[in-house]
Amino acid sequence: MSSPFGFQITHTHGAARRGVLKTPHGTVNTPAFMPVGTQGAVKAVTHRDLDALGTEIILGNTYHLFLRPGADRIGRMGGLHRFIGWDKPILTDSGGYQVFSLAARRTIHEEGVTFRSHLDGSEHELTPETVVDIQGQLGSDIAMVLDECLGHPATPARAGDSVERTLRWAKRSREHFVKLREARKAPDPLFTNTGQVQFGIIQGGTFPDLRKRSVEGTLEVGFEAYAIGGLSVGEPIPLMYDITERTAALLPHDCPRYLMGAGTPVDLVEGVARGIDLFDCVMPTRNARNGQLFTSTGRLNIKNAEFAEDSRPLDEQCTCYTCKHFSRAYLRHLFQAGEMTSGTLNTLHNLHFYLDTMNRIREAIVFRTLEELRQNYRRIFPAQPADSTLEG
Amino acid sequence: MSSPFGFQITHTHGAARRGVLKTPHGTVNTPAFMPVGTQGAVKAVTHRDLDALGTEIILGNTYHLFLRPGADRIGRMGGLHRFIGWDKPILTDSGGYQVFSLAARRTIHEEGVTFRSHLDGSEHELTPETVVDIQGQLGSDIAMVLDECLGHPATPARAGDSVERTLRWAKRSREHFVKLREARKAPDPLFTNTGQVQFGIIQGGTFPDLRKRSVEGTLEVGFEAYAIGGLSVGEPIPLMYDITERTAALLPHDCPRYLMGAGTPVDLVEGVARGIDLFDCVMPTRNARNGQLFTSTGRLNIKNAEFAEDSRPLDEQCTCYTCKHFSRAYLRHLFQAGEMTSGTLNTLHNLHFYLDTMNRIREAIVFRTLEELRQNYRRIFPAQPADSTLEG
Repeated sequence: MSSPFGFQITHTHGAARRGVLKTPHGTVNTPAFMPVGTQGAVKAVTHRDLDALGTEIILGNTYHLFLRPGADRIGRMGGLHRFIGWDKPILTDSGGYQVFSLAARRTIHEEGVTFRSHLDGSEHELTPETVVDIQGQLGSDIAMVLDECLGHPATPARAGDSVERTLRWAKRSREHFVKLREARKAPDPLFTNTGQVQFGIIQGGTFPDLRKRSVEGTLEVGFEAYAIGGLSVGEPIPLMYDITERTAALLPHDCPRYLMGAGTPVDLVEGVARGIDLFDCVMPTRNARNGQLFTSTGRLNIKNAEFAEDSRPLDEQCTCYTCKHFSRAYLRHLFQAGEMTSGTLNTLHNLHFYLDTMNRIREAIVFRTLEELRQNYRRIFPAQPADSTLEG
Repeated sequence: MSSPFGFQITHTHGAARRGVLKTPHGTVNTPAFMPVGTQGAVKAVTHRDLDALGTEIILGNTYHLFLRPGADRIGRMGGLHRFIGWDKPILTDSGGYQVFSLAARRTIHEEGVTFRSHLDGSEHELTPETVVDIQGQLGSDIAMVLDECLGHPATPARAGDSVERTLRWAKRSREHFVKLREARKAPDPLFTNTGQVQFGIIQGGTFPDLRKRSVEGTLEVGFEAYAIGGLSVGEPIPLMYDITERTAALLPHDCPRYLMGAGTPVDLVEGVARGIDLFDCVMPTRNARNGQLFTSTGRLNIKNAEFAEDSRPLDEQCTCYTCKHFSRAYLRHLFQAGEMTSGTLNTLHNLHFYLDTMNRIREAIVFRTLEELRQNYRRIFPAQPADSTLEG
């Protein structure tokens, strides 16, 4: 049997790549954006909404699913795909980012990280090995290793220590993953997806030499593909782009590259231009629920009084369900009235905008017009401080 | 031009009637259940979801829309249909029920009712005339008159006074409605639906003689059709059915009859068997958001721990999107996790159950099997105290 995982680059344009990612649950056209389904659901929309939007892959959060309903439970139910009724690709993060974000509620040590649940204060530990086990039970198509994600700014010494620890964890992660893969066959509640692959994560903060060290060490361990972590954590945007560019250039050409936690619409275009193939971010979904919409003429805050009797759609260029059927006035009313449908209609629009942006990007790679698209997005979305606050 | 309003009975079976209600925004197969779209949206679902469920008519709450976003605003936006993007029939209540529910925050007097908004405490007045004006701006297909809705129990004297006041208000309502209809033509922000009709409301509590008096007086005023109000307000269920039966029998055969605020699945079948054609109730939508589901084997509380690893659908007989794609275990997880999608998937199921119940009822009238359906529903949903707590 040929491997259910693969990556084929069909077009290149500068550092940008148009490709197809093959997984056990189907293919993904890259560059791709992954809507975030933290607790096994992309907030405010149904799977059929996601299908209709053309979503090809979603992200699940290991930290949340581990705590509730529990990875063991999901394993017994046949894995995350079966449990949530989503039969397309799923990538799961390691849970590390969420645990490190708990700040005072967690302790990092060589073995792993100990933390108290945000739900009930109960104490838990994630180690490189347990994170592999948990994701084995979840049975995602792509599992991420446990890494240490520093905030910005960090001293070079602290960042260097963190890179070395992340490398030691990477080695343990891979050894455990390979052992698990060889020992188990699905259906097995401990390993529900025999085609699961594992991505390594590059750290090193904003220090090019540490990024280089992290790439070399992680490649030496060897994973199916690699992600760039530790960006979008408060550093200046130009620096984020610079580190992305330098790091991506060091990664193997024939593996997909995933920029974790990015980003704004501009980040997507800028990331692709630097060789990134995969993105995830809560921005389109979270902002939607807060009334912040992305449109072809820029950002729009639906709360604003100016929209109270505005009969135009959110975006006159947009073909999404929301824009084809509803006015700004109605959407403002739903938001003001606290109707759940507000979250749903806004999320449909923002996800459409993000997925349509990826369509435009893929097309621009084929037709070699990425620079034009980039200029266009930079004009529509001028840099603003809020851009640097991204979520994992 | 023939009237855009009409009611054609196609089959009868005992007191039950199968018919077609014609409105300016399309036809409704009766007996029909109207999902409640309080603030211009049926909570947790989109219009396309409602369409897919086969919804033919929804209800809007005048009280809520009057306060936010305001009837004048909706009028300027071309009426409620255009404002909310729903092009099928809409019935609007008078707002009276909500205002009377405000208890300490309202004062009833001969002119109308003065109240303080639940949103900001601002003072407002609804009179029979302003309620007609507001619904003229909303442009619903069916407008209800302002009535006084007593709770249960009420003394005969108090109920009698209330019936008389409601009759005086009915006369004022109809006079103002006719004047408005003759004076205005759409498009006009003050009267956005030239085909709008007005239904009178029968009161009289649980007193057959007062119900009779209310019917006679209301018929003398004369409306396009009549509703039975003041039930499902705390009285015993058998009494509710008895008053419904007696009152329906006094109403014109060739007009649709609307039992306001009912009810449970059993109430629908029992109401139809007594000659009712239209129903509305927040029960399917509100219960759904609280995790209470209606199934072909009875009620189900999705919160229960027993469902944590139950891979069956909510209802193995059900063909709704939720039941075709998701397990009880996943639905329980979504509820426990506080995901908005929980409300959406549960609402889709409960509305499907209610609309499917109406399908079964209409079929049972044609095939003269209503008694069988009634026995079946009584068996599936044995009477329980919660049944008597209905919402307007």
